[in-house]
Amino acid sequence: MYNFKSLREEAYEANMEIKFHNLAIYTWGNSSAFDPDKGIFAIKPSGVEYDELKPDMMVLVDLDGKVVDGKLKPSSDTKTHLVLYRDFKGILGITHTHSPYAAAWAQAKRAVPVFGTTHADHCAGEIPCTALMTAEAVKNDYELETGNLIVKSFNTGNIDPLQVNMVLAAGHGPFTWGKSAAQSVYHSVILEEICKMAFFTVTIDSGSKPLPEHIIKKHWERKHGAGAYYGQ
Amino acid sequence: MYNFKSLREEAYEANMEIKFHNLAIYTWGNSSAFDPDKGIFAIKPSGVEYDELKPDMMVLVDLDGKVVDGKLKPSSDTKTHLVLYRDFKGILGITHTHSPYAAAWAQAKRAVPVFGTTHADHCAGEIPCTALMTAEAVKNDYELETGNLIVKSFNTGNIDPLQVNMVLAAGHGPFTWGKSAAQSVYHSVILEEICKMAFFTVTIDSGSKPLPEHIIKKHWERKHGAGAYYGQ
Amino acid sequence: MYNFKSLREEAYEANMEIKFHNLAIYTWGNSSAFDPDKGIFAIKPSGVEYDELKPDMMVLVDLDGKVVDGKLKPSSDTKTHLVLYRDFKGILGITHTHSPYAAAWAQAKRAVPVFGTTHADHCAGEIPCTALMTAEAVKNDYELETGNLIVKSFNTGNIDPLQVNMVLAAGHGPFTWGKSAAQSVYHSVILEEICKMAFFTVTIDSGSKPLPEHIIKKHWERKHGAGAYYGQ
Amino acid sequence: MYNFKSLREEAYEANMEIKFHNLAIYTWGNSSAFDPDKGIFAIKPSGVEYDELKPDMMVLVDLDGKVVDGKLKPSSDTKTHLVLYRDFKGILGITHTHSPYAAAWAQAKRAVPVFGTTHADHCAGEIPCTALMTAEAVKNDYELETGNLIVKSFNTGNIDPLQVNMVLAAGHGPFTWGKSAAQSVYHSVILEEICKMAFFTVTIDSGSKPLPEHIIKKHWERKHGAGAYYGQ
Repeated sequence: MYNFKSLREEAYEANMEIKFHNLAIYTWGNSSAFDPDKGIFAIKPSGVEYDELKPDMMVLVDLDGKVVDGKLKPSSDTKTHLVLYRDFKGILGITHTHSPYAAAWAQAKRAVPVFGTTHADHCAGEIPCTALMTAEAVKNDYELETGNLIVKSFNTGNIDPLQVNMVLAAGHGPFTWGKSAAQSVYHSVILEEICKMAFFTVTIDSGSKPLPEHIIKKHWERKHGAGAYYGQ
Repeated sequence: MYNFKSLREEAYEANMEIKFHNLAIYTWGNSSAFDPDKGIFAIKPSGVEYDELKPDMMVLVDLDGKVVDGKLKPSSDTKTHLVLYRDFKGILGITHTHSPYAAAWAQAKRAVPVFGTTHADHCAGEIPCTALMTAEAVKNDYELETGNLIVKSFNTGNIDPLQVNMVLAAGHGPFTWGKSAAQSVYHSVILEEICKMAFFTVTIDSGSKPLPEHIIKKHWERKHGAGAYYGQ
Repeated sequence: MYNFKSLREEAYEANMEIKFHNLAIYTWGNSSAFDPDKGIFAIKPSGVEYDELKPDMMVLVDLDGKVVDGKLKPSSDTKTHLVLYRDFKGILGITHTHSPYAAAWAQAKRAVPVFGTTHADHCAGEIPCTALMTAEAVKNDYELETGNLIVKSFNTGNIDPLQVNMVLAAGHGPFTWGKSAAQSVYHSVILEEICKMAFFTVTIDSGSKPLPEHIIKKHWERKHGAGAYYGQ
Repeated sequence: MYNFKSLREEAYEANMEIKFHNLAIYTWGNSSAFDPDKGIFAIKPSGVEYDELKPDMMVLVDLDGKVVDGKLKPSSDTKTHLVLYRDFKGILGITHTHSPYAAAWAQAKRAVPVFGTTHADHCAGEIPCTALMTAEAVKNDYELETGNLIVKSFNTGNIDPLQVNMVLAAGHGPFTWGKSAAQSVYHSVILEEICKMAFFTVTIDSGSKPLPEHIIKKHWERKHGAGAYYGQ
């Protein structure tokens, strides 16, 4: 049988970063790592403390939501991950946290405007916030529909999930993704920092305006795309 | 004589968690552990620093408020604990802290609305805030009446203390309880996190609306009751 | 010659507590310890980093502001300490910090209302804020006049400095005092906690009302005076 | 060849202070050290994690922006440093961070008023905030024009960069400078503390007034100029 050891280790490391960066307390939050060739991802088991987590506890799940391997139940948010891996082509890791500033923007049901270059360095547009889920969708399949709401907000807003790699699930909290599980949790840290600065900004002046488009574009292009010149 | 060593150790461990989680400074805050068969609880001695606390310093008190065993005076809040153990059947541990976000909501005399799923995961309704105590009740027995005000706010609001295991004593601070002293302090940590997020939320938008009932119910039921599927 | 070693050590220990409790960065803040029989206090030298501080660096100053012993220049705030020791009979230690929440209330030139029992446990009234200093007083002797403004705000408000052992110097920051240098810095920690909670409270609801007098009085008397029953 | 080892070490140490004081996460922020005789400065390489930084990674750049020595690409903000060294005579170190309170004031596009003596101890006037960059200037040379905007805001406001050694680049974040790289990062720490207190101040009372000029002047002169008497 194919060995998913490294996929589990990648998921495990990302989950431990959630704890290290104080993005969640107790058992909250979860990261997963995806193998697109096998169509399988490794995800945190449900309700396990970070201090007790071990790489081989990571649960392997396929894109139908079936547990392929693992002694424990996968995260209760597993189906949200599944939808994102299925519909956002090219992403290989997902992180969900309850980091307080991002959760607060989600609770206020507000997209985060691009107030500064810290934000523009990472996203060329506002961080979208989904709609609230209808009673019907909740009844159908809550976690799957959470994924659907996220996908819908990107489709409706014509947003590229490879450029804006973060979202606020309204009334809930942030989901971030990336080219690896490690990158997805890195994006969670950056999202929390962006949300903290945006919180301070609107508290100083509730009428604060976003950056003009030409500055957003410039900062985004410093770090991303063909003309990027940030880094080595 | 029956040995209360483990009850004292349970109370001691919970008190040390108050300190560990930065829920109080100096001598503030207190936890207790209850033995319902004996009708006795072990509680922090009054005004002792957490660093100096030892398990055998925990004071044993019965439900009439009589010190059964212990060289030190029990917490000045002992009678509040007593009322809660007497009136909230089934709780086995209580924690009181002065954690700043929860204290601020108590000082603003505001119940905390269910702004997000972090809250709904733990309480299916708002976190109640008691009324302020009348001059007459203060004169009668301040700490006992603090307990009575808490019980009254649950009775009036028809709230089940086994479902909503936390309250804000108006102008004072939080009390939380649970199926053990350890769980009561765990609820204090979660309450502070909920209050922090709620503080950020109303600061971003003072008109923020609570979650709709169908999402609150869903999140509560993910973690509690017959259909719960969170955890192992 | 009389040995001031223990007075210096007491002042040194209090100054190190400023650093330990994050009440000031770099060289900001200062504590002193007073010997009323000799009319001399030991105070932090001006502009020295806490990490470099040693007990024998503490400067001995008399109530005329004369340096009695010490190789270094005393704190630039020395004359403020002097006025308080002279006019507030019975205080034996003073601490001045730039702790951010207390400094913010001072910068907003607002007395801190008694919003909760955390405050009432330590002060039976609001924490006063002085007037701003006139140009004339600044020209005369800034640090001495800072002390005079503090004393004046207590006289005008008919406040007992042994009951309210903390003040905000308007546009500047907090001064606290007590029965020892150690107690004065303990009061600085508590003041910062009170100011943090008060900040959260007015941010949640700018119309928050102070506690009614009968609750303030009760909490104060739990911890202070003849009928106190808090502690051992 | 002249040995720039000590210049690189100075720049390296300042960069490590950015990390130590939590002024930036991941690879954000940068410090440089300038040798005015050689017309060369040592600056952080672009996009390198602080944990991986070594003194010999610092890149040497001249005032035309030419890399004189170094295996890595210099910070993407290099040209901003260059303009400041060229136009602000006498500065020998520059630090740029994304510290959250300072970034928030920059995002709110607000100069920071002198609300208190903590501020006046370090700057005798408000901390200026530049204009937003025009689309044309962005197209020309973004980082160079950032420097130009800073210089322009000092010229327009008739501000002496040796007295006010900090600025907010609108929509971006803080730049600070000083008589050494170490002093420039020291000023970044102080700026963040000033911005935090100012944030709390306007949140308590959005109508807070700055200090009167006679108090600002007094505090500035306590620490700076011929009559300074703070420190040893």
